[in-house]
Amino acid sequence: MRNHPARLISRKRDGGALTGDEIADLVDGVVDGSLGDAQLGAFLMAVCCNGMAPEETAALTMAMRDSGRVLHHDHIHKPKIDKHSTGGVGDKVSLLLAPLVAAAGVAVPMVSGRGLGHTGGTIDKLASLQGYRTDLSLERFGEVLDRCGYAMLSPSAELAPADRRMYATRDISGTVESIPLITSSILAKKLAEGIDGLVMDVKVGRAAFMTEEHDAVALMEALVATGRLAGIEMSALLTDMDHPLGLAIGNALEVDEVLQALDGSCPDDLREVTLALGVEMLLLAKVANDADAARATLQRLWNDGVVRQVFRDNLELQGGDPRVLDDHSLLGRAPHVVPVEARHAGFVADVDPLALGQLVVDLGGGRRQPSDDVDPHVGVVLRKVMGDQVQTGEVLAFVHARTQAAAVAGAQRVALAMRIGEEKRRRGALIKRRLA
Amino acid sequence: MRNHPARLISRKRDGGALTGDEIADLVDGVVDGSLGDAQLGAFLMAVCCNGMAPEETAALTMAMRDSGRVLHHDHIHKPKIDKHSTGGVGDKVSLLLAPLVAAAGVAVPMVSGRGLGHTGGTIDKLASLQGYRTDLSLERFGEVLDRCGYAMLSPSAELAPADRRMYATRDISGTVESIPLITSSILAKKLAEGIDGLVMDVKVGRAAFMTEEHDAVALMEALVATGRLAGIEMSALLTDMDHPLGLAIGNALEVDEVLQALDGSCPDDLREVTLALGVEMLLLAKVANDADAARATLQRLWNDGVVRQVFRDNLELQGGDPRVLDDHSLLGRAPHVVPVEARHAGFVADVDPLALGQLVVDLGGGRRQPSDDVDPHVGVVLRKVMGDQVQTGEVLAFVHARTQAAAVAGAQRVALAMRIGEEKRRRGALIKRRLA
Repeated sequence: MRNHPARLISRKRDGGALTGDEIADLVDGVVDGSLGDAQLGAFLMAVCCNGMAPEETAALTMAMRDSGRVLHHDHIHKPKIDKHSTGGVGDKVSLLLAPLVAAAGVAVPMVSGRGLGHTGGTIDKLASLQGYRTDLSLERFGEVLDRCGYAMLSPSAELAPADRRMYATRDISGTVESIPLITSSILAKKLAEGIDGLVMDVKVGRAAFMTEEHDAVALMEALVATGRLAGIEMSALLTDMDHPLGLAIGNALEVDEVLQALDGSCPDDLREVTLALGVEMLLLAKVANDADAARATLQRLWNDGVVRQVFRDNLELQGGDPRVLDDHSLLGRAPHVVPVEARHAGFVADVDPLALGQLVVDLGGGRRQPSDDVDPHVGVVLRKVMGDQVQTGEVLAFVHARTQAAAVAGAQRVALAMRIGEEKRRRGALIKRRLA
Repeated sequence: MRNHPARLISRKRDGGALTGDEIADLVDGVVDGSLGDAQLGAFLMAVCCNGMAPEETAALTMAMRDSGRVLHHDHIHKPKIDKHSTGGVGDKVSLLLAPLVAAAGVAVPMVSGRGLGHTGGTIDKLASLQGYRTDLSLERFGEVLDRCGYAMLSPSAELAPADRRMYATRDISGTVESIPLITSSILAKKLAEGIDGLVMDVKVGRAAFMTEEHDAVALMEALVATGRLAGIEMSALLTDMDHPLGLAIGNALEVDEVLQALDGSCPDDLREVTLALGVEMLLLAKVANDADAARATLQRLWNDGVVRQVFRDNLELQGGDPRVLDDHSLLGRAPHVVPVEARHAGFVADVDPLALGQLVVDLGGGRRQPSDDVDPHVGVVLRKVMGDQVQTGEVLAFVHARTQAAAVAGAQRVALAMRIGEEKRRRGALIKRRLA
């Protein structure tokens, strides 16, 4: 580092601002190790306590982006737009959205994460497609993007490596909850993908990273402002995570739901969130004149099977077996499937996504620690959702598990997570806010 | 650690309070290494940003005290009182004060520090006494204390070891400036000495750790409150560090000044600060009824040569050569001594202690880094102080250096640090505030 770290850190401690050069120097120190762990911990905490001005957050984001390779897909003469979600339970949107938007002429270079805790990860879901590889070289990633309109990549050590050390440090040092740090961590990796625009799906609710709307809106605003300062087009939707998205929770089960959706059978909430995000991506890409036109285009491509074909093309390019599109049983299945039955009649009054997400982790379908292995087949599939009328003994859901005991115990937990009431209550708005 | 570190750290990040048990757990983690560097850096920064309640600071202090051995001098049937200064330029008070107060029947177990930057350290000054050892075993420390009434010890790895790692971490991570962290660092080591009471000399001014009176008063109040919560008697004086204390700056030169003071020839400011702190120590020890009686006792012991005898006893017990008391030339002398002459007539209008302290470091008499060696003989001796009338060409000071070039260059810097004006101006109050 050119600057003395303690001098920069103490400026931030006292509420002062750092210049772009100073922030870049700190990030250099993160990568080359000249900023020690204690210094990094102290710096991150100073940012937690005193925040950052928008220009500082943008400088941090760009410095983190520039800490590794930054992709440019100049050979692809299309707008390059991606979507990123802050994570939820049952959120398989990316798997549908990428082929949907690619079908409309937008290039989608998508680097996704693995799941952690109750929050699933796109890479884990894709891993349940036999043979499908997300550990592409960056060259191959660009090639697949060019050939079929979208490409899926697992986190690469070559992209924004500063984030890797910063994220690991935040995780152990009580410095996760900071809007500027969350914002820069998300955007640095996305900016390195080589995109012209990004749509953020900021989740809010019990199973979201931000449980309070006030915090989620602050994050949404910071993401949009920072992305723009860093030179890309931005928009964001605030979407509901007080309920699971769609009916399936668990990796292969969610892919099965996606395959059914490609065939036209899609739960309403999943369709709605996917289309809403797709509309935003088409607007950022300027391939549609307005939201109505964008939505009509996307619905047509979906209904006509074009999206299914793009999905198939990608599947083949990334090593998957396209026969799974016609034979979902190739996804495999957990050995024990147990129904959850309604104990009395009434209306489904609640479906707790946090309880279900944690159950799937406990069944082996998610990670407590980043090093954990994931069982692709376990999970929960809902048959009823919020507001549905049910009779005593009617099936509310199925639990898929490795053992009968786990399935039975899981079914009891699902019954607790799906409260039955006397009155019909409606789920709140799916799309709560838009920032564009 | 029993608690998850990130959970405790994030509570402090959010402005919450930690219990005594939780703080003790963190300090255990500091000592056994289960609290990582990033976690320690983040915790220290959270304390910098959000402070600590008095009970938290006391709990931190006691946990740090208990991280190593805690001395008890039960075999010594005297009150045990120490003094600690936040550090200044020319501050040789401890060398005079310890025998002075010991002569009055108080036991003074004094663990002191080495100098760093422009601030001198008692241990470095004592090291200029040939043969004098401050690296005593803790057993021998107690023995010397018993035999002559005071004992001098350099920082021991056995006392408050948590502070060592915490201080080193603060130093590199921009987390030095925090009242609770400064307070606990000072008091933990002092409490481990086995004392009943402590008098704090909190310096304020250009060359002090706290340059602003507001900050120094806050530190003074925190030290007194925390020490009392930790179970010892406390009082504090706020003293001037806008000027050097006494006339000599540099290790052996300061010891020479102390030896002269023991003989009765003591600069007024040094005598005044020493007596004022001594009065406070006697009051805490309850060996004097009031301040006037305490002062009279101390002056009598000083004038009658009792203090000189106690100093000699200690010198012999800790390995020094007592002949130095009668022959100061045994202290040795730098090879080059150059006078600083007044360029024009007038009154000394300023003596900048920071400039002089930094000069002594540059001459080799102080440390830029903790690992630096110190030359005992170099330094500056003032002949004139603030308010003195001078004639052109009159000697303002002498510079003692290793080379003629360094001495001449040093003399030019001293001339700049001792401004001559037309009007006689007075130095501000020496003792600015008392808290008892």
